[in-house]
Amino acid sequence: MLIINTGGTFNKRYDPIKGELFVPNDNQAVESILESLVIDISLQGVIYKDSLEMDAQDRTFLGQTIAASDAQTVIVIHGTDTMDLSAEYIDMLALDKTVVFTGAMVPFSIDSIEATANLSMAIGYAHNAGKGVYIVMQGVCGEYNTVRKNKAFGRFERGINGV
Amino acid sequence: MLIINTGGTFNKRYDPIKGELFVPNDNQAVESILESLVIDISLQGVIYKDSLEMDAQDRTFLGQTIAASDAQTVIVIHGTDTMDLSAEYIDMLALDKTVVFTGAMVPFSIDSIEATANLSMAIGYAHNAGKGVYIVMQGVCGEYNTVRKNKAFGRFERGINGV
Amino acid sequence: MLIINTGGTFNKRYDPIKGELFVPNDNQAVESILESLVIDISLQGVIYKDSLEMDAQDRTFLGQTIAASDAQTVIVIHGTDTMDLSAEYIDMLALDKTVVFTGAMVPFSIDSIEATANLSMAIGYAHNAGKGVYIVMQGVCGEYNTVRKNKAFGRFERGINGV
Amino acid sequence: MLIINTGGTFNKRYDPIKGELFVPNDNQAVESILESLVIDISLQGVIYKDSLEMDAQDRTFLGQTIAASDAQTVIVIHGTDTMDLSAEYIDMLALDKTVVFTGAMVPFSIDSIEATANLSMAIGYAHNAGKGVYIVMQGVCGEYNTVRKNKAFGRFERGINGV
Repeated sequence: MLIINTGGTFNKRYDPIKGELFVPNDNQAVESILESLVIDISLQGVIYKDSLEMDAQDRTFLGQTIAASDAQTVIVIHGTDTMDLSAEYIDMLALDKTVVFTGAMVPFSIDSIEATANLSMAIGYAHNAGKGVYIVMQGVCGEYNTVRKNKAFGRFERGINGV
Repeated sequence: MLIINTGGTFNKRYDPIKGELFVPNDNQAVESILESLVIDISLQGVIYKDSLEMDAQDRTFLGQTIAASDAQTVIVIHGTDTMDLSAEYIDMLALDKTVVFTGAMVPFSIDSIEATANLSMAIGYAHNAGKGVYIVMQGVCGEYNTVRKNKAFGRFERGINGV
Repeated sequence: MLIINTGGTFNKRYDPIKGELFVPNDNQAVESILESLVIDISLQGVIYKDSLEMDAQDRTFLGQTIAASDAQTVIVIHGTDTMDLSAEYIDMLALDKTVVFTGAMVPFSIDSIEATANLSMAIGYAHNAGKGVYIVMQGVCGEYNTVRKNKAFGRFERGINGV
Repeated sequence: MLIINTGGTFNKRYDPIKGELFVPNDNQAVESILESLVIDISLQGVIYKDSLEMDAQDRTFLGQTIAASDAQTVIVIHGTDTMDLSAEYIDMLALDKTVVFTGAMVPFSIDSIEATANLSMAIGYAHNAGKGVYIVMQGVCGEYNTVRKNKAFGRFERGINGV
């Protein structure tokens, strides 16, 4: 199993000099969670962006990274705003792997519970899922096009094709 | 999906008057984790014991509780020392359900990350697991008799039939 | 003793819908700290602003609030960027009270240790301080014009009159 | 200023192998708090005991350690059950220093707020206190013989000579 960390809210930390949150170029949040586990999970950090800034080139690179990996099961930590677009793109690539997208509505540095729950549930879900592309967020688990972010309420929910 | 909370280390809190940890007769730890999720999961608290004190009568009651539930998928939060015995007993009952045991090596009140990771991974794992009895602890996931506690090292690991 | 909470970084929380930190119109952060204490301390919330947005009218109101209180000792929780200006203004009012300004470089919701340390040290410092206006931040304690924020390094330090 | 860490509840951590709390032979809890401060405070760890196990020899050693230090102001982190006895012993030595005892009702590893508040308030209180021996716990501050632990309620309070 491989975790690919692309940044997003999940990873944001506070910069006391600028007085604002930023996406760091590291995997501290994920590493803090993996410390509680005794299994070997590979971890690869790429892109490190807020998902609103993620563009076609980033998605191409994410797809190449997943394709190039030996891992049959890949967890992608991704910003929530365009998680569905990246998942759709990866699905289109038909990589014959199990890919589970997850992230967080609140940074791990602020609410360690939600981020830990999302990543851990994604890992557990991936164990028995077949080939395909999935989203696991806030307890909502399913094929990527059956889970969507409700931006007005700030939470994920069931919904076919974003409807 | 139903979560049955039986107590164990997962739930322990500190009593400042006695100066020691105890298993409370409530589900605060589980509830703190479920607050981060937006899905409906039923929660039932029973027994509330350190698993070293769990006896045959408690296991009978746990089995009856699982059998009596409408839920096809049940997560059991259980102390780690006799988790394998309770899982073996539940397996023997052949209930035709998906039952996943989990718990924590360190109380949620001390290390919220490990307890949250274990419960969340158990929930994710249960989604696609077939009928059977499983243990999910510290990232180790599998049929109950393939996961065991290494008491000398204080962690869970793979191992057939406790060997 | 009275705590006046004016907002600032100390109080900021994360809004998952907007994806940004904000100064809430409440005193949750302070209340979380006071829960650990067994003494009676009055708490009054006013203004609730980032200190960069605090203007002359706000400072006038802060001065009136301190003057109107029966308390001889007042702790003011304030944003760090203009803490020195507000302290100077309060000093100018010559209120014949002990007034200690404090705050945080990182929100309590992100780093509960620093915010708790600052507020608690301010309370302890106020006990034996004479009449006057003081700043207590990150362990640096003294008359208001001997403690300054080093904005380049994001921390407080000793320095006469901001030099 | 010197902090002498003698152990006690303040420092207790959980041992997942034994399944119980213990007083570690290190200063991790204090160091975690000092990281939020930008001032230089010396830190010396000694004895490392639950205060119920502290004996006359330990108190003699604590007194010698305080006397031998160059510091005029000393914070002593101490278990709460015999904090008053150690404070009385140090007072008897008439060391012509400012000595402030503090500790915690709940370990820093379980409730970081209370432990941080107590230590920080003790540091703030020490700044302006005269020579003497004091206790600062849960917001209660005063000469050592005016502050006592109410063991039935698990909290500190005002009370002359333990009455």
